[in-house]
Amino acid sequence: MSGSEIEKYALIVAGGKGARMGSETPKQFLISCGKPILMKTIEAFHHYADNLHIVLVLHPELFSQWESLCKEHLFKIPVNLVEGGQERYHSVKNGLEGVPAGSLVAIHDGVRPMVSQRIIQDSFSLAERFGSAVPVTSVNETLRKISEGTSLVIDRSFLFSVQTPQTFRSDLIKRAYQQEYRPGFTDDASLIETMGEKVHFFPGDNKNIKITKQEDLLMAEVLGKS
Amino acid sequence: MSGSEIEKYALIVAGGKGARMGSETPKQFLISCGKPILMKTIEAFHHYADNLHIVLVLHPELFSQWESLCKEHLFKIPVNLVEGGQERYHSVKNGLEGVPAGSLVAIHDGVRPMVSQRIIQDSFSLAERFGSAVPVTSVNETLRKISEGTSLVIDRSFLFSVQTPQTFRSDLIKRAYQQEYRPGFTDDASLIETMGEKVHFFPGDNKNIKITKQEDLLMAEVLGKS
Repeated sequence: MSGSEIEKYALIVAGGKGARMGSETPKQFLISCGKPILMKTIEAFHHYADNLHIVLVLHPELFSQWESLCKEHLFKIPVNLVEGGQERYHSVKNGLEGVPAGSLVAIHDGVRPMVSQRIIQDSFSLAERFGSAVPVTSVNETLRKISEGTSLVIDRSFLFSVQTPQTFRSDLIKRAYQQEYRPGFTDDASLIETMGEKVHFFPGDNKNIKITKQEDLLMAEVLGKS
Repeated sequence: MSGSEIEKYALIVAGGKGARMGSETPKQFLISCGKPILMKTIEAFHHYADNLHIVLVLHPELFSQWESLCKEHLFKIPVNLVEGGQERYHSVKNGLEGVPAGSLVAIHDGVRPMVSQRIIQDSFSLAERFGSAVPVTSVNETLRKISEGTSLVIDRSFLFSVQTPQTFRSDLIKRAYQQEYRPGFTDDASLIETMGEKVHFFPGDNKNIKITKQEDLLMAEVLGKS
């Protein structure tokens, strides 16, 4: 942990019930290397600083399953459990209620267990300096828009893939979440920009994948062994 | 290999000299799990069908290095070595000269060693049926256009990431490569579409990564162990 005295929070968002992967188990509870993904995600932040405050936003229907998993896996890292809402926006907004003014908060997807210590560290130190810090990676693949029989190549110059943690001074992000929900709010950076504020971007890395498919789970497993 | 009698070719494109990774070694020659990436790529196609014809397009300055690597790694898969050109377009065009009419040709990046047997198989059988077959994956991450202090979220509906092998009936792709080079020709599918023909897309997978960064090399290594 850096020498700074500012309080740090990780707000881990796992509000979904996981229907997308076609599995009974919500994706944040899928087992990778013997452990639910969500626990590995929380461990990454706890490893960065054991006095970091962790807020976990979960769908209320999953609270009891989470508690059983904690018992089963002897998971002892203390987290402040908060109820998820309808959309990611509502989940984050609920989570931010437990984050005090004057602190830093890293908002992170529960299904990105491969986040590196370097990214967590950069994210807090840059957010302290600039107010916000959002990791991005350049896009290597050709992108196409394919719909209803038409297909178009997308110009990928200046195109970046946005990851999490998206980290902010808590005053700034709490103010951003006072805005009414709109469907265009795909991530926390969007809310900041809608207020007319600049977001500071920094390099993420390709290992920091978001697990949304079975293939990704395999990738996380093998990365977890490295 | 399917029961079809049509001749099959793999055109492996490794025309670059690899300056982008900031390494003396061209990226197709980087070692992953004890072997140059390019050899693993060729092995994937040879494993699919040992009577598949393999055309390897390499920068002429790298021919002798390739031959030493083959000796060193006891690499015996027969390939038809062809000189690469200025841009990917010219490299593929040179490679296609060795591919006869009436066959199928899978054009594949030399730096995608993780291509699965399922993708290779689908690519040939769909190209036989539809004339073309190009693997795509959906985009999970939020995308942003960031330049000169402005940042915009990109709508990712109907947005897909395009992979290789891009496989075609040889008559179709050879006709496409009779068009003069233009900077908009980012991949083989673009050339087909410029002629007013439709391209058939099918599901690729997230493991089929293109190695363009050191992180990707690590990912290929761990995936190689799975």
